[in-house]
Amino acid sequence: MTHPVSLEDIREAAPALHGIVNRTPLLENADVNAMLGGRLLLKAENLQRTGAFKIRGAYWRILHMSAEERATGVVTYSSGNHALGVARAAQLLGSSAVIVMPSDAPAAKMAAVQALGAEIVTYDRDSENSADVVRRIEEESGRIEVPPSAHPLVLAGAGTAALELFEQAGELEARLDAVLVPCGGGGLTASTAIVMAEASPGTKVYGVEPVLFDDTRRSLAARERVGNPKGQRTICDAIMTPIPNDVTFPINLDLLAGGLVASDAEVREAMRFAFEHFRIVVEPGAAVGLAAILSGHFDISGRTVATVITGGNIDAHRFHTLLETE
Amino acid sequence: MTHPVSLEDIREAAPALHGIVNRTPLLENADVNAMLGGRLLLKAENLQRTGAFKIRGAYWRILHMSAEERATGVVTYSSGNHALGVARAAQLLGSSAVIVMPSDAPAAKMAAVQALGAEIVTYDRDSENSADVVRRIEEESGRIEVPPSAHPLVLAGAGTAALELFEQAGELEARLDAVLVPCGGGGLTASTAIVMAEASPGTKVYGVEPVLFDDTRRSLAARERVGNPKGQRTICDAIMTPIPNDVTFPINLDLLAGGLVASDAEVREAMRFAFEHFRIVVEPGAAVGLAAILSGHFDISGRTVATVITGGNIDAHRFHTLLETE
Repeated sequence: MTHPVSLEDIREAAPALHGIVNRTPLLENADVNAMLGGRLLLKAENLQRTGAFKIRGAYWRILHMSAEERATGVVTYSSGNHALGVARAAQLLGSSAVIVMPSDAPAAKMAAVQALGAEIVTYDRDSENSADVVRRIEEESGRIEVPPSAHPLVLAGAGTAALELFEQAGELEARLDAVLVPCGGGGLTASTAIVMAEASPGTKVYGVEPVLFDDTRRSLAARERVGNPKGQRTICDAIMTPIPNDVTFPINLDLLAGGLVASDAEVREAMRFAFEHFRIVVEPGAAVGLAAILSGHFDISGRTVATVITGGNIDAHRFHTLLETE
Repeated sequence: MTHPVSLEDIREAAPALHGIVNRTPLLENADVNAMLGGRLLLKAENLQRTGAFKIRGAYWRILHMSAEERATGVVTYSSGNHALGVARAAQLLGSSAVIVMPSDAPAAKMAAVQALGAEIVTYDRDSENSADVVRRIEEESGRIEVPPSAHPLVLAGAGTAALELFEQAGELEARLDAVLVPCGGGGLTASTAIVMAEASPGTKVYGVEPVLFDDTRRSLAARERVGNPKGQRTICDAIMTPIPNDVTFPINLDLLAGGLVASDAEVREAMRFAFEHFRIVVEPGAAVGLAAILSGHFDISGRTVATVITGGNIDAHRFHTLLETE
């Protein structure tokens, strides 16, 4: 099966992003390994510029626009991390961004997006369709959409995180048995699957979603795109997607080993664990892979397993509330 | 002037510690650099095993003991981070540890030390001398002291953090103008000064201390060891030392460019900044270098400056309290 993005496309993006994005560390704690009976590696994209992996894909997409297109600007929808990545990438490349955000997006993320010079247009997550709002803005302004995942260049940029993960595992002499990727629109999951399928065929890739937002897991089982029920909530705001998209889902259906879920309580426990044992700040949606491991949903004993910590954009008050509340 | 430890000694320790300690990342945030008008690099030893750089020196010291000495065990005094490092190193090397801790040491650190199998003996910071308690235990039990800084092997082990910092700066094509090191007993400060003096002579090294605990800064000015007044408090528990010791002070007097201070309020602001912009958990005593920079005491504009984030051992409740309180 031919996919819209290849390992070669990802390898091409990597040097262009050098100096723009960080080569985030692959963290390991020998005492945690002893506790879990396996080898756990965390790709710390929460330490990425703008606090999430999203700037990789956004920058790579906007870099391919003409001077005229950049002058007109870009538009996208995002609950936060992709918004920050697009806003910063647009700023760095002399463009401008309009961001469509759900009205219940964390205040800290909205303020941060505005601080990067982007304009915010809000919509109601339950009654409106973000894609419709973006399309209207595209038509009225001529701005080009930079989707969070459904574009080959966005996937190629995001895939550089997975490529680094693969290279850094090699530097640690670690042979990856599996990689668990927090899964919203499924873009980073798909890119990771493409990297591993070509570079490390023995490595299984799983998408991990919050309970009640496991559209990709259920779609994989049904072998067709199935949406989530409306009106549900999770603390994992970054990956509250309604339904898999038609760019990433065929890749994930072809290449993923499966889908996993984690509850909000398990995610909070994983955030606390990351605080105590890795001294890093992880936002809820970025902790689902770690949560799936710590809760025992995914057993890493005797194996080497990586998970991507996709972001760390959470304000101090909410962070404390989530760590303390049962 | 000949020092008790050389760059060669530190280079010898590095491969022996490989696989035992982490090569912690040197973090950089391009947006922070733009904000500060200079290049800021953070050597993230808070992401080290046991949450601080201390395990480097402890392991290297205990590795040099005979089988018989290891069976008898070690003793040390520490407000926390060195205790964790010694306890874990002793455990890894089949030895045992007694830790003399101030009675007001953070509960989380005491619990963590005990969890690593070490025995704790407490003393009163204002009325007793920790060295006397350690000496009594040495005499009664035959245990060998692993001091927090006043031993050439401890200095050589700690120096591997500075050696990594130097190498990683090179990988980032950064020429270091200065390195700011949180300074308690002055061991990591001295080791860093030795590394830079030999490997990067253009790099100035500064010790940074909390206000009222600036014994090294005042001793450098007096050119002799001067103690702090008793009965003072700071949130920087990890570096509340009474007076420079006679092993590290001559090195620091010979090699340091100077001493800097930061107030508790400035330290709290630095902890919050690290949370928001680097998504890492920094304990108070590890944030003094960053605090000296952010407060403007040390101007990095137009320069490349690194600081060592020496540890991240702080419980969630205290972390939140320090970030929220004015």
